[in-house]
Amino acid sequence: MEDDFSTTTVSAGQLRAIVERIETLEAEKAEVSEQIKEVYAEAKGNGFDAATLRKIVALRKKRPEERSEEEAMLELYMNALGMIA
Amino acid sequence: MEDDFSTTTVSAGQLRAIVERIETLEAEKAEVSEQIKEVYAEAKGNGFDAATLRKIVALRKKRPEERSEEEAMLELYMNALGMIA
Amino acid sequence: MEDDFSTTTVSAGQLRAIVERIETLEAEKAEVSEQIKEVYAEAKGNGFDAATLRKIVALRKKRPEERSEEEAMLELYMNALGMIA
Amino acid sequence: MEDDFSTTTVSAGQLRAIVERIETLEAEKAEVSEQIKEVYAEAKGNGFDAATLRKIVALRKKRPEERSEEEAMLELYMNALGMIA
Repeated sequence: MEDDFSTTTVSAGQLRAIVERIETLEAEKAEVSEQIKEVYAEAKGNGFDAATLRKIVALRKKRPEERSEEEAMLELYMNALGMIA
Repeated sequence: MEDDFSTTTVSAGQLRAIVERIETLEAEKAEVSEQIKEVYAEAKGNGFDAATLRKIVALRKKRPEERSEEEAMLELYMNALGMIA
Repeated sequence: MEDDFSTTTVSAGQLRAIVERIETLEAEKAEVSEQIKEVYAEAKGNGFDAATLRKIVALRKKRPEERSEEEAMLELYMNALGMIA
Repeated sequence: MEDDFSTTTVSAGQLRAIVERIETLEAEKAEVSEQIKEVYAEAKGNGFDAATLRKIVALRKKRPEERSEEEAMLELYMNALGMIA
C-alpha cells in the first residue's frame, strides 16, 4: 500500500455481526425497561405509591447498618437546620 | 376507624411481591447492560471504534430519507459557518 | 428557483449569532456546575458528608407536610417489609 | 463524652452557609439552563432546526482534523453496511 490514509478497511461481515448483537441486546433492554414501567403502573393501580416503591428498592440495596448510619446523619443535619419539629 | 391518620395500611404480601418483581427485572436490565458493554469492549479489542459503532446503531434506527435530510441540513449549517473546507 | 430541494438557505449571520449565544450560555452553565462541585469538595474537606448534603438540598425544596407524608409512607412500607427493627 | 456514637456534631452555621451556597448556585444553573432553552425556542421560531443546532454546537468543540477523522470512519462503516447509496 502506498497510502496510509487509504488502508483502513473493515470486515463488513464482522461489523454487521457486532451491530446486530448490539441491536438485539438494546431491544431486550428496552423490553425489560418497559416491563419495569408496567410493574410500577400496575402497583399504582393497586394503590401503591411509585416514589416510595423506588426508595424501598434503593434502600434494600444497602446493608441495615449503612441505612441507619445514613438516616442518623440526615437527622443530625436536619436538626441542625431546624427542619425537624 | 377513629383516626384518619392511622388508617393507611398496606398488604405486606402484595408489597413484597411487587418489590421482588422490580428487583428481578432490574437485575435482568443490569445484566443486559453489562452484555452490551462487553460487545463494545470485544469490538474495540478487534479494532473497531466504539464511538462510530454507537453512531451507526443510532443512524440505523432512522429511515434513509430521514438520514439524508438531517445530513443535508447539517452540511447547510456547517457551510454557512465555514466549517467545511 | 425551479427546485424544491435547493431552496433551503440559512442566514449565516443569524446562525452564527445563535450558536455563539448557546456556546456562551453553555460555558456559563459549565462554570456554575464546577462551582457547585467545588462547594461540595470544600464541605467534604471540612468534614461534611456530600451525600447527606444532597439529600438536605432535595428535602428543602419540599414543604414540611410533604416531607412528613413521604416519610410516613416510607416507614409504612419499611415496616410492612420488616426493614425496621 | 464517654460514647463514640454520640459525639458526631455539626456546626449549624457552617452547614447552613454551605447549603445556601449550593442552593444559590443551583438556582443560577437552572436559570442558565432556562436561557439555553429559550435560545433554542427562539431559533426554532426563526426557522432553525434545533437538532441540527445541537450537532453544530457539539462539532465546534472538536478540532477540524478530529471531525474529518470521525466523519471518514463513519462513512467507512456505513459503506461496509450498505447504508450509503
